[in-house]
Amino acid sequence: MNALDHILNADSVAIIGASRDETKRGYQAIVTLKKSGFEGGIYPVNPRERRILGLRCYASVEEILEPVDLALITTPAHTVPSLLTACGLKGISGAVIIAGGFGEMGGRGKRLEREIIETASAHGVRLVGPNTSGIINVESGLNLVGIPDVPGGDIALLTQSGNIALHLITEAKLRSHKGFSYYIGVGNESDIHFDEYLEFFKNDEKTRAILMYVEGLRDGRTFLQQVYKTSREKPIILLKSGRSSTGQKSAGSHTGALAGISEVARTSFERAGIIYIEHPDQLFPVAETLSSLPPIKNKQVAILADGGGHATIASDLLTDLGVEIPTLSEATQARLQKILPHNAAVSNPVDVAGGTDSDPEIFARCARILLEDPSIGGLLIAGLFGGYAIRFSESLKFIEEDAAHQMGKLVRSSGKPIILQSLYNSVKPHSLELLRYYGIPVYESLDIATTCIGQLSRYGQYLSTYEHKTNFQFNWGEKARPKGADIIHNAQEEGRRYLFEHEAKEILRIHGAPVSQEQLAKTADDAVEMAREIDGSVVLKIVSPDILHKTDAGGVRLNLENEDQIRHAFHRIIDNAREYKPRAVIKGCLVTSMKKKGVEVIIGTKVDRQFGPVVMFGIGGILVEVVHDVSFRVLPISQTAATAMIDEIKSAPILNGFRGSPALDKNALSELLLIVSEVIESYPEIEEMDLNPVMVHDHGIDIADARIILKKETEAASQNP
Amino acid sequence: MNALDHILNADSVAIIGASRDETKRGYQAIVTLKKSGFEGGIYPVNPRERRILGLRCYASVEEILEPVDLALITTPAHTVPSLLTACGLKGISGAVIIAGGFGEMGGRGKRLEREIIETASAHGVRLVGPNTSGIINVESGLNLVGIPDVPGGDIALLTQSGNIALHLITEAKLRSHKGFSYYIGVGNESDIHFDEYLEFFKNDEKTRAILMYVEGLRDGRTFLQQVYKTSREKPIILLKSGRSSTGQKSAGSHTGALAGISEVARTSFERAGIIYIEHPDQLFPVAETLSSLPPIKNKQVAILADGGGHATIASDLLTDLGVEIPTLSEATQARLQKILPHNAAVSNPVDVAGGTDSDPEIFARCARILLEDPSIGGLLIAGLFGGYAIRFSESLKFIEEDAAHQMGKLVRSSGKPIILQSLYNSVKPHSLELLRYYGIPVYESLDIATTCIGQLSRYGQYLSTYEHKTNFQFNWGEKARPKGADIIHNAQEEGRRYLFEHEAKEILRIHGAPVSQEQLAKTADDAVEMAREIDGSVVLKIVSPDILHKTDAGGVRLNLENEDQIRHAFHRIIDNAREYKPRAVIKGCLVTSMKKKGVEVIIGTKVDRQFGPVVMFGIGGILVEVVHDVSFRVLPISQTAATAMIDEIKSAPILNGFRGSPALDKNALSELLLIVSEVIESYPEIEEMDLNPVMVHDHGIDIADARIILKKETEAASQNP
Repeated sequence: MNALDHILNADSVAIIGASRDETKRGYQAIVTLKKSGFEGGIYPVNPRERRILGLRCYASVEEILEPVDLALITTPAHTVPSLLTACGLKGISGAVIIAGGFGEMGGRGKRLEREIIETASAHGVRLVGPNTSGIINVESGLNLVGIPDVPGGDIALLTQSGNIALHLITEAKLRSHKGFSYYIGVGNESDIHFDEYLEFFKNDEKTRAILMYVEGLRDGRTFLQQVYKTSREKPIILLKSGRSSTGQKSAGSHTGALAGISEVARTSFERAGIIYIEHPDQLFPVAETLSSLPPIKNKQVAILADGGGHATIASDLLTDLGVEIPTLSEATQARLQKILPHNAAVSNPVDVAGGTDSDPEIFARCARILLEDPSIGGLLIAGLFGGYAIRFSESLKFIEEDAAHQMGKLVRSSGKPIILQSLYNSVKPHSLELLRYYGIPVYESLDIATTCIGQLSRYGQYLSTYEHKTNFQFNWGEKARPKGADIIHNAQEEGRRYLFEHEAKEILRIHGAPVSQEQLAKTADDAVEMAREIDGSVVLKIVSPDILHKTDAGGVRLNLENEDQIRHAFHRIIDNAREYKPRAVIKGCLVTSMKKKGVEVIIGTKVDRQFGPVVMFGIGGILVEVVHDVSFRVLPISQTAATAMIDEIKSAPILNGFRGSPALDKNALSELLLIVSEVIESYPEIEEMDLNPVMVHDHGIDIADARIILKKETEAASQNP
Repeated sequence: MNALDHILNADSVAIIGASRDETKRGYQAIVTLKKSGFEGGIYPVNPRERRILGLRCYASVEEILEPVDLALITTPAHTVPSLLTACGLKGISGAVIIAGGFGEMGGRGKRLEREIIETASAHGVRLVGPNTSGIINVESGLNLVGIPDVPGGDIALLTQSGNIALHLITEAKLRSHKGFSYYIGVGNESDIHFDEYLEFFKNDEKTRAILMYVEGLRDGRTFLQQVYKTSREKPIILLKSGRSSTGQKSAGSHTGALAGISEVARTSFERAGIIYIEHPDQLFPVAETLSSLPPIKNKQVAILADGGGHATIASDLLTDLGVEIPTLSEATQARLQKILPHNAAVSNPVDVAGGTDSDPEIFARCARILLEDPSIGGLLIAGLFGGYAIRFSESLKFIEEDAAHQMGKLVRSSGKPIILQSLYNSVKPHSLELLRYYGIPVYESLDIATTCIGQLSRYGQYLSTYEHKTNFQFNWGEKARPKGADIIHNAQEEGRRYLFEHEAKEILRIHGAPVSQEQLAKTADDAVEMAREIDGSVVLKIVSPDILHKTDAGGVRLNLENEDQIRHAFHRIIDNAREYKPRAVIKGCLVTSMKKKGVEVIIGTKVDRQFGPVVMFGIGGILVEVVHDVSFRVLPISQTAATAMIDEIKSAPILNGFRGSPALDKNALSELLLIVSEVIESYPEIEEMDLNPVMVHDHGIDIADARIILKKETEAASQNP
């Protein structure tokens, strides 16, 4: 039994700060536990009371003679450290801390939060919160939140906002047959982080889907690793707020966590298999759908409607979501035409054109024909179904119910999902309740119904490409080569926080990148000698620890064709450098070949504060700097991810052979991205790497310039295993 | 009294195809008219019946002795032409045609639709439909649709789908206090188009907002002109489906109209003041909001929430919608701090942090403080308001109701809107009903509430910049110059469908564009002579009606510095041209100056099939061709629109001085866009114009190449007034 088991499946709970005042959490908690049918021990703790709600009240946890699994602490922040000590001494292994006033308030609050973490750790107490609304185990009745009547079910709910949880629970009660296995208000995540909860739910048999509202993450990479392990077995539906700067400010004051979603976060979430949601209206319905229905395997969906308007709008919305609405096969169209009026549309979307007005059972027959078409992976039914008895004739009620039974069984037998949009949903006709009984979600909103189909399709796509994904594991130093390490250590010994261009390129070469021969010439004679080994014209560049911007210092000479030019250029560069920075230490000049012109791309890496090392790719110049047409990935990356990074920028067609020019060597480019990934993983000392530009040709690539910046040595050391 | 008045305010209606069969429209229509309290004359027409539902049934309309305003025709398509003739002879001035089977079915249906248009026109009968669900005048009870219990109100509803209308009417009944003045199913728009209905509603005193669902438009420009006149007085909320290719196919089979929304349609809708909606969930709420509340004048909104989650999500969603959430002034923050707990967030979003739990009246006090801040144009309240009595204590009910009264009055006195999101909306507490009574909409969805605030802000922005908008009037030929017309007629007489480069440039010059001296040299001597007048180096380009792609034909020589080079180049060009196309008619060479390098932009015009002439702008090369970073406007454009076109492309920073280079001459560029607009308006003969590239410098611009393609003469003639 692990720590979270002790907390979430606690048999006994102490209510520290228990109260007789009806407005206090210490009162409400006891009432809610009783109402929720919790059969374990409830131990109110308050030195000023003797009995509360018929239960004996203890002056302190030590006084309780029976063993206690869990403490709910409802007292103010400053009382928490000593209470945790008492809990530890009593052998309580988990505490849920309601009070705010910790990290989210900054300054003194942060110090107090550190203190409770240390105290809890010293006494073997694991913490939920602080600044949490509490936790609920719906089945056992362990309800420490004060939200009564939480519907039971197979969705685990993890949030950083009590009101959002209340919102989702209310929505479930009003609009669905589904409910929750657990609720956890994670609060400030001071001890137990999102990933540990995810691991618990991954292994929990009662849970089929995980619904999350997140404002900030403490450790993005560990989170991604756990998501990656979990999302294949159970869909994770997540809304992350704090995307805007005002939202970030608001989230920061709310949970004190690192906020701010970047492109990095979004792509990494999706890569780890998260169903990423931006609109709160979609959050519960998508969880309901994904916990009830099989995912769509082939992105291809049929629309069945009893009105042109709904069919047309649904087509637009599904297309926006990347779902395909293929024209049906001739055989399928013929089968539909047999049971529908001549003016019906049968190609997809299917519009029954009044053909169901007197017999809504035809919906079920159409649904069967559509799902039997092998090109169709799922079905959206839109319009009035469920309301035929209301709109046309009471006698149609039983026909609609029969159709609902047929469609429910069809989902089970075909393994393909149906989602229904009905204008009559809020009237709650029995036919729609029947559909829900079979796990077919019904929505009044076409926006929501199409979103749910879209997410079933995305999740299906994720699962079908799963094997190619990376697991977000980063093995610092494992692939390092001694020669590469030497280069870095040498620079550090010289007191440099960066590598010279030729050193950076040498590291890339050691890891297999196509780097042309580059040598450091200390004299003009050296340069001439080295140039003999180079095909074509030659470039000289200054090498000095004191000159970073070589061009500004007059330190670069291109297109040198012969001995005289090389000798002359060498002297000019040295002179220019001395003039630019008289005290500069000058190592000499780098002798290299003139690179062929090609499409210039940029590859850069940095360390993201939430997710660790990430890599960026874009096409050089305006496209990166003005249009911001770039792609990001959390490192390390796989071959698939490298290819996707290249293909997903808008300007990718330039690399595919633009205006009749030949296609460029994207293979060599994706290999370079993989090498960059390996280099970053090899040397934890690297803070940033920039390859700018890399010239891409129709055969091969040239790294025209490379820059590596090192971390302060203390930072690097802390990341070594 | 105009034609639509006769139809929509008809005093008497003939039901052609009246029936005793309960499943028929000819029966339902009579029942619904009676149920809806229609007090005018109802005249069933059916030669096989004598009485229907207690009313005398006529064999034909001629038999009716009393005057009849309107006919509802419920019989099949093929019967319609002769019935319209009968209506005309009887003096009936309007007919609503339910049957489908016209233009939307193609072929024979199209011919039938043309026949009914001609018949109706010959007999002075105006048509609603065909293929319509009917019309409703809610106040008079003229309900020809068969949807009972339509709530009355001030929103006019115009749709091309009966089911979407049913959806919106049901939503209004279930979730709001608002209702409809009229409903019109426009159907195939064969006679009366959207614009005529808009004009009616613009002048209708009962209507405050217009809600539209559109699949296709018959005449985009006339529509825009009427929208422009109407939207300033009454907000028009529109969802246009058929954005996707599948959606277009679906819409085409549904109404037979030109479908397909392009970037052109979207920008022109917004420019004409339409509140453009893509998600059906938003359609009714936005109409409800805009018909109830004053628009937001300054884009700046405050958020007031009783939970961090809702505040954070609302911040993100409003930011997505272009709404600003400014930090409150110190004075306002101090006033809030006085009535809220110390841990409340008071900078905006405002989070009351439990401060309202025991006294929800504090919401009203906060609302007053926030709306008294002059920087705040509107307020979103999010969270639990309305549910305090449910969640905390029954005794808070009256306090919530008092707060609702205060907030309702505050909206009236301040002229600033409040929108409320409440988790307890579906429970329908009295406090929320009170808010609605004051015109404050309440939504359970945070997505919807933020969208409504966002659209109040957009509409406010539209109104405040209204004077600068254009009216979409296009006065063909009015600004034409005789010399320009001569150039075009000359080309047409030569049988050309295009102008030579120097002719196109000459037309631009005539209208004030900065075109450098360019002359046509027939001999090398001419060329040398003409080059003397040019500063700097010279360019020669072939001029031949048979050579369109001059570079491919070796017909362009750049950077000619002296007499010899010019002479040599002239001969080479002519030789190349002869070799390229031996039978080409060669007019000579254009002699022009070498253009200074600059940022290359592209200006193009074409004739859109829905909206007529449009103009496109973008930065040349990859940005246009690969990234599709372009802006569009329906012509003519104003100065404001020209400036906006330049500024709204993503790569606009390039023109503002990129990487330390000087800012470029955007004024000269926007003047050129205005000249292009004038040229297109001047000469209806022009099909397309392309200025590609135009070089933009820090001072001035150069039109490096210009191309004009002419319409077939028959097309051009049909557009001349």
